[in-house]
Amino acid sequence: MTRALDTLLPIDEGPEGRLMDAVRYAALSGGKRVRPYLTLHTAALFNVDAKCALRVAAAVEMVHCYSLVHDDLPAMDDDDLRRGLPTCHIQYDEATAILAGDALLTRAFEVLSEDGTHQDANVRIELVKELAKASGPLGMVGGQMLDLVAHHHNLDVNEIARLQRMKTGGLINFACVSGAILGKASESALHKLHSYAHDLGLAFQIVDDLLDATADASAVGKRTGKDEEQGKATFVSLMGIENAQAQAGLLRDQAIEQLDVFGEAADPLRDMAHFVVNRVS
Amino acid sequence: MTRALDTLLPIDEGPEGRLMDAVRYAALSGGKRVRPYLTLHTAALFNVDAKCALRVAAAVEMVHCYSLVHDDLPAMDDDDLRRGLPTCHIQYDEATAILAGDALLTRAFEVLSEDGTHQDANVRIELVKELAKASGPLGMVGGQMLDLVAHHHNLDVNEIARLQRMKTGGLINFACVSGAILGKASESALHKLHSYAHDLGLAFQIVDDLLDATADASAVGKRTGKDEEQGKATFVSLMGIENAQAQAGLLRDQAIEQLDVFGEAADPLRDMAHFVVNRVS
Repeated sequence: MTRALDTLLPIDEGPEGRLMDAVRYAALSGGKRVRPYLTLHTAALFNVDAKCALRVAAAVEMVHCYSLVHDDLPAMDDDDLRRGLPTCHIQYDEATAILAGDALLTRAFEVLSEDGTHQDANVRIELVKELAKASGPLGMVGGQMLDLVAHHHNLDVNEIARLQRMKTGGLINFACVSGAILGKASESALHKLHSYAHDLGLAFQIVDDLLDATADASAVGKRTGKDEEQGKATFVSLMGIENAQAQAGLLRDQAIEQLDVFGEAADPLRDMAHFVVNRVS
Repeated sequence: MTRALDTLLPIDEGPEGRLMDAVRYAALSGGKRVRPYLTLHTAALFNVDAKCALRVAAAVEMVHCYSLVHDDLPAMDDDDLRRGLPTCHIQYDEATAILAGDALLTRAFEVLSEDGTHQDANVRIELVKELAKASGPLGMVGGQMLDLVAHHHNLDVNEIARLQRMKTGGLINFACVSGAILGKASESALHKLHSYAHDLGLAFQIVDDLLDATADASAVGKRTGKDEEQGKATFVSLMGIENAQAQAGLLRDQAIEQLDVFGEAADPLRDMAHFVVNRVS
């Protein structure tokens, strides 16, 4: 995965090369790579050419990394640690970080649009459309706005779930269905992967909230205890730790059930559901 | 044009509605609408359906407005006046402005990818690819980075021209060729419009530098005298006012010459070349 990103985000030797340095810093510095893993392993269910799947997986990760770079900015969450390293605006500067995020988002759409992603233009345009929907005002960007206004409102569990579906659920859903789009999968297979992605995404966010409440920064690689400090409503503050843990386990089992129709080929997706709930960072 | 943007960027009544308010503030508050004009009138050369051309013109303007919102941020050019109104981060706040820019960029790609833009998926994916190239690291975002590092370097006229081609030329070029892509124009027609866009874009930037050096803020609708204040190399500082004026006139005439093959149908594009050089704001 890192090699694909390395190739698709080349070093720029020009005087503006600082931009691509920051882009590469943001995209190549590790991370769990959950979203590209989902794209690669849903694509594998439909025997998609690995080179095509790798390009789409890289595009998904670019959008994820852009959202982290912008979310970490001083005007947003004001974080200085990410994946155990200084955030992009600390390592470079705010202006460079804003532009690096912009560049990652733009490059993601460019990668999807290029011939190497799929020979059929209909498939490529479908990917562009779905990615834009997942990351636009009704998806990730809207979710981030909701997260910012949530500081001043007392959201209930349903509103928190909606926030999560927009902010992180949309891109996780795209990661799962992009493999199916590449493979021109049936409507029913697509529907199963939608449901898997929905439950996985919700479990992922609940565990994120649990980690923020219970783990320490050195284990997670980013600042923890933020939610409580900011008096922010989360799944944990609304449900309590035990109920949140039980709910995450339930969602994991539900996600795995959706995969029955794919047989053993879906084992990597089952593994991911376990990983998401058991992870400690 | 404003009506098309109004339709494509609908009000959001949800708690996150502040995002679309800011998006609409940034996109619907006037501006010269140079880029959508170019798309509409190059599309008209090839008898493109006006509804399709309007969608592409709106997408181009969204990308232009996103670039203004991000460029105006405190960490970038730190401007508080744009089109005679408070800039987006002054009217709302920095976080909202960052997200509004992100949303405009994402929505532009979504609009291009949707069926209404053109029935042929090959045309839509070509538009996505060209827009991404024009606004990515080798285009607009790269140009903005170059502009930031230029403060610490003494660029010569060739380097300033390269900066302009990237920062503003790419999107002006896309605006002109998008009409031709929609109309499946011949290679030679496309080439003429490329050349027209190149000369027009350069003339546009020279006149921008002239206005910054000679006009006052109330006429231009944004802060002026910035370039000299910041000791920034511009076409005017490098060539002098008279040479810059002469060069802009020469480029206008060259741009107009490229249009001969299109006959009277290209009159609106000729008018634009005159407007760009004669404008006082």
